[in-house]
Amino acid sequence: MNYKMIINILGWVLKIEALAMLIPFICSICYGESEIKVWAVCILICFAVGFLLSRRQPKRKAFYAKEGFVTVALSWIVMSLFGTIPFMLSGYIPNFFDAFFEIVSGFTTTGASILKDVEIIPKSLLMWRSLSHWIGGMGVLVFLMAILPLSGSSNLYLLRAESPGPAVNKLVPKVKSTAMILYGIYICFTVIEIVLLLFGGLDLFEALTLSFGTAGTGGFAILNSGIASYSPYIQYVIAIFMILFGVDFGIYHILLLRDSKATVLKSDELKCYFGIITAAIILIFINCRHLFATVEQAFRHILFTVGSIITTTGYSTVDFNLWPQFSKVIIVLLMFVGACAGSTGGGMKVSRIIILLKTIVKEIRTCAHPRTTLKIKMNGRLAEHETIRGVNVYVAAFASIFVASLLVISLDNFSFTTNFTAIAATINNIGPGLEMVGPTGNFSEFSSLSKLVMSFCMLVGRLEVFPMLILFSPYTWRK
Amino acid sequence: MNYKMIINILGWVLKIEALAMLIPFICSICYGESEIKVWAVCILICFAVGFLLSRRQPKRKAFYAKEGFVTVALSWIVMSLFGTIPFMLSGYIPNFFDAFFEIVSGFTTTGASILKDVEIIPKSLLMWRSLSHWIGGMGVLVFLMAILPLSGSSNLYLLRAESPGPAVNKLVPKVKSTAMILYGIYICFTVIEIVLLLFGGLDLFEALTLSFGTAGTGGFAILNSGIASYSPYIQYVIAIFMILFGVDFGIYHILLLRDSKATVLKSDELKCYFGIITAAIILIFINCRHLFATVEQAFRHILFTVGSIITTTGYSTVDFNLWPQFSKVIIVLLMFVGACAGSTGGGMKVSRIIILLKTIVKEIRTCAHPRTTLKIKMNGRLAEHETIRGVNVYVAAFASIFVASLLVISLDNFSFTTNFTAIAATINNIGPGLEMVGPTGNFSEFSSLSKLVMSFCMLVGRLEVFPMLILFSPYTWRK
Repeated sequence: MNYKMIINILGWVLKIEALAMLIPFICSICYGESEIKVWAVCILICFAVGFLLSRRQPKRKAFYAKEGFVTVALSWIVMSLFGTIPFMLSGYIPNFFDAFFEIVSGFTTTGASILKDVEIIPKSLLMWRSLSHWIGGMGVLVFLMAILPLSGSSNLYLLRAESPGPAVNKLVPKVKSTAMILYGIYICFTVIEIVLLLFGGLDLFEALTLSFGTAGTGGFAILNSGIASYSPYIQYVIAIFMILFGVDFGIYHILLLRDSKATVLKSDELKCYFGIITAAIILIFINCRHLFATVEQAFRHILFTVGSIITTTGYSTVDFNLWPQFSKVIIVLLMFVGACAGSTGGGMKVSRIIILLKTIVKEIRTCAHPRTTLKIKMNGRLAEHETIRGVNVYVAAFASIFVASLLVISLDNFSFTTNFTAIAATINNIGPGLEMVGPTGNFSEFSSLSKLVMSFCMLVGRLEVFPMLILFSPYTWRK
Repeated sequence: MNYKMIINILGWVLKIEALAMLIPFICSICYGESEIKVWAVCILICFAVGFLLSRRQPKRKAFYAKEGFVTVALSWIVMSLFGTIPFMLSGYIPNFFDAFFEIVSGFTTTGASILKDVEIIPKSLLMWRSLSHWIGGMGVLVFLMAILPLSGSSNLYLLRAESPGPAVNKLVPKVKSTAMILYGIYICFTVIEIVLLLFGGLDLFEALTLSFGTAGTGGFAILNSGIASYSPYIQYVIAIFMILFGVDFGIYHILLLRDSKATVLKSDELKCYFGIITAAIILIFINCRHLFATVEQAFRHILFTVGSIITTTGYSTVDFNLWPQFSKVIIVLLMFVGACAGSTGGGMKVSRIIILLKTIVKEIRTCAHPRTTLKIKMNGRLAEHETIRGVNVYVAAFASIFVASLLVISLDNFSFTTNFTAIAATINNIGPGLEMVGPTGNFSEFSSLSKLVMSFCMLVGRLEVFPMLILFSPYTWRK
């Protein structure tokens, strides 16, 4: 294990965190909040520790898959630990487990909250919550790769460990350039959304926080009513951008290059993603039309909810907890489907679902025609054996952690639906679930143990299981 | 597709069904019931149709995997269709969907019932319900193989399609002998249980029906109170036999041959099966001890419930619906684990869970030591690639059908917990779930569509997904 290299990277992560904290710091200055001092202290701590850790440049640059996973897992944990300081120091979330849950929920773009009333929280802290979504959405190590001169091998292993999806697509041969392109697209889209929201009459603070939450597919709102009280225009803008941020960023790269649009149309995942969204909207519309005054209202709220859940954002304009069971089951299923691979969204990812379904069809076809050798195609190309194996292991590990977590949190003795959807909402990085943790509820009632377990679930979900498992596996640390 | 061969086998299945109906027929004579005529008519219909179908011996004996799956799936459907006749003709379950649900629940050893009051049902019909568990437990085609001179290839494909577990173990080189050994052990164990129950003071009718339900890991009771009103001795006997019928019958074969007991001890599945049972009992005991008057009562009811659920029998002595959430979640998890492969129990099977967990460990170890090639071992032998692939496809198909069924039955607008556990209880062939379908509830309130879907789920569960999928796949029927 290349400890020096790992420590160096952790130092850089903390320096970036200090840099990020400048935004809420400025925010607290603008609003003349008493939290200015808190932010100054936090920035100092993060920068000082970061500086100490990254002081020495490691000589040995050797870096393998194991180091990649461990670094990513540790970075996210360290980043979250330091991210709790503003909450605790300001006194608004004094309990460590609560603060850790809240910031992990932020970085992992989950948006599940233990706060019963967000409107009493100072604006700078709300800004930090929303900003954490934006940082976590594309990934802090991807950002690091875009700016740091790391060696080629470490770059690749870090990208693999932090990026979502069954197979990592480098957009261009160099990882560093890929990281820069990804962040470029990310920033552009965020800025466009901010402008559109400002155009809709929001002030800069609202536009920034809501855009950060959308871009990272996070879901922390700044009002207790979520997105319900904003104008239909704002709701449409957010709904459309949520869905856009759930698309594989590689697609945008291809579109930008005007590199044969046919490739984009060949994307099974993209077709399937929009297909699922359309189907879900139609089915819920038929099931819930009577709950809304007008067709437009029904369409808008259903579009918003479906977009919010499939992209694992978790913003809400209505309390889908009150919908009929059929619609609620669709919502729960969308939670597991998740967005496209290579997007900022969570969940299992559409491409994994496609691969799983294709293996079933292949099995049935092979039985009917045992002499023909069938291969699984994905996006017009042959799916590699390694990719299919990876999807299967991912599903098995995902299910195991889901089940173990469900068991632990059931000790709190809340209802089965609450427990099941609480884990579904955290491990898939959604935010709201059903019943107690529904859109109008929160996670505050759970015990500290449950909050820790769900924080773990959120990290497992965002980092796609293996970085966390490898970090805590004895095999990794045995000589 | 060798239609003539398939039709011939279907004919034989019906003739065996006619033969099986002799038992309730005799029962109705003994109790002087007015249903004697009903049984006479049913036996006549089954035998006549069976005779007509199996009249001609097919010349071409060619038989492949496809035919094996289709024959098994069709046999179970045909057997169930004819099995509804006594219920409908007697007027006790006049609705076709109800009767179909009830008999499919019987043959698939599920034990889920639409009957609100079983005590008003004539004894001969109760006998038919319980007998259907016994027939379905080991499989009607396995029985056919034991008595019919089929060609070798059809034997193997039928055994593969009807027997549970990730890989079919022939106990001896000849399939016919394997089938005979399996039925031999099955009959012996059933007889021992009948004797032990008679010894405990039950009358022959009670001893037969309860033993049939235990042996097939079915779960239809003959009292509304389930097994709650019987003596502790009876409850212990049933609990122990449920657990014994959940063990791979291959283990008993090895034990009978006195063929190196070391092999038995090497069985990962057996160790794991008893490990899970012990762990579940301990955890639930700690969680639920306060609900019982004495330690013995607590131990007995928890042993009974855990044994009943993991073997997917579904008998109950207590209403676990009233237990704390932690214990309820353990119950739900046990539903999915299921019994050992090669037993009469349902669920995903312990060996599949072991293989899945081992693939996860392998993935983590490979990451830590990328240069070593790791293989997955099962029961001391190398697990074949084909077996692991099979487990993965099974899980994917199982999950897909689970999800689709959950969506359809949610149209009835019952609670999420009811819907989720109703599908879990039917697809895993358990019987009771939670809330509305708990041990004191039943499935009568569901719509006909939901009952049909859950009947499909029960068949999918008992036949382990692929026979049903292949029967309904267009690829199978396309030239």
